[in-house]
Amino acid sequence: MHIAILTFDGFNELDSLIAYGVLNRIKQPDWQVSIASPSLQVSSMNGLTLTSHIPLHAASQADAVIIGSGVQTRQVVANAELMAQLQLDPSRQLLAAQCSGTLILAKLGLLQAIPACTDLTSKPWVQEAGIHILNQPFFAKGNIATAGGCLASAYLAAWVISKLAGAAAAESALHYLAPVGEKDSYVAHAMQCITPYLAEE
Amino acid sequence: MHIAILTFDGFNELDSLIAYGVLNRIKQPDWQVSIASPSLQVSSMNGLTLTSHIPLHAASQADAVIIGSGVQTRQVVANAELMAQLQLDPSRQLLAAQCSGTLILAKLGLLQAIPACTDLTSKPWVQEAGIHILNQPFFAKGNIATAGGCLASAYLAAWVISKLAGAAAAESALHYLAPVGEKDSYVAHAMQCITPYLAEE
Repeated sequence: MHIAILTFDGFNELDSLIAYGVLNRIKQPDWQVSIASPSLQVSSMNGLTLTSHIPLHAASQADAVIIGSGVQTRQVVANAELMAQLQLDPSRQLLAAQCSGTLILAKLGLLQAIPACTDLTSKPWVQEAGIHILNQPFFAKGNIATAGGCLASAYLAAWVISKLAGAAAAESALHYLAPVGEKDSYVAHAMQCITPYLAEE
Repeated sequence: MHIAILTFDGFNELDSLIAYGVLNRIKQPDWQVSIASPSLQVSSMNGLTLTSHIPLHAASQADAVIIGSGVQTRQVVANAELMAQLQLDPSRQLLAAQCSGTLILAKLGLLQAIPACTDLTSKPWVQEAGIHILNQPFFAKGNIATAGGCLASAYLAAWVISKLAGAAAAESALHYLAPVGEKDSYVAHAMQCITPYLAEE
């Protein structure tokens, strides 16, 4: 399984890298998690530079795509060349958007008739794109999920794991990253946020 | 204020970079957050390479130091050359350790008679260094704090902010990163974890 995390210049470290850490808890031989970016080096909203693993267009072939967030998302959706590289298809991929990443899903036309989650800053932009925004951390329908608030990226990653490797694997990954002394309650709460959207199918 | 986050090869992305994201919520002109590493490029336990901001030894001059975690911490504490670069002093610096970072504080002799938090994997190593480990996410005494479990790094960062910029600034930073729909409860819980150790002074 290959999961690509779309990470643009100006990215929010929490939104791309919490997902990266959680997803990498799965130790299956065919499990690969990649940062996908328009350039080899990509710098965050707070001046952290990292080396991406794959070019942006390669995410179109991934089994799951997490769309990270950042301060330049409005520029991304206005950039036809970048948007054309995103050949995303929920009939063959899981598509998950975090915070302002929801705007990218919306502009790709993939949230038609699906309500969504996003962060408080991005909310008006996503609403302007015609999407109904929910006041909750996570929502999914079929192969499309969205989350709002940086720490909800752990729920988004857990949903991806649940879909690709089962709920037990997601619980184990969440248990690892939860604070000591709060692990059981954290896992129970996180799974409560995503399980209703797994059961619907 | 300059806060350095010690980040070694094999680092845990969550432990260094959640703190980085939270601390960068403070928008004061003299507020600087740096990744401090032994080399300019540093690679995580899951193959993420980032560019550090300052050399390791420069953290000794920071106002606060967060010691990140990773899979090579036992090699770090066995490396006299690396350890000699860490001239850390709680009389002039806040010192905060995350997960296996607690082992570094212990080996520097800075946890004498102070119980500590760490993750479940690192616990036996830190106990072997003579430290009493608590079954809780966060503990602080004076200018020294420790946390266990990746997501407790948000509490550790909030403690640093509380000490350097006040509790209201910490609450605001936590509010930003909390999941939508859970913000008030998340902030209240996180502050409950750290406030007892702010009030003691």
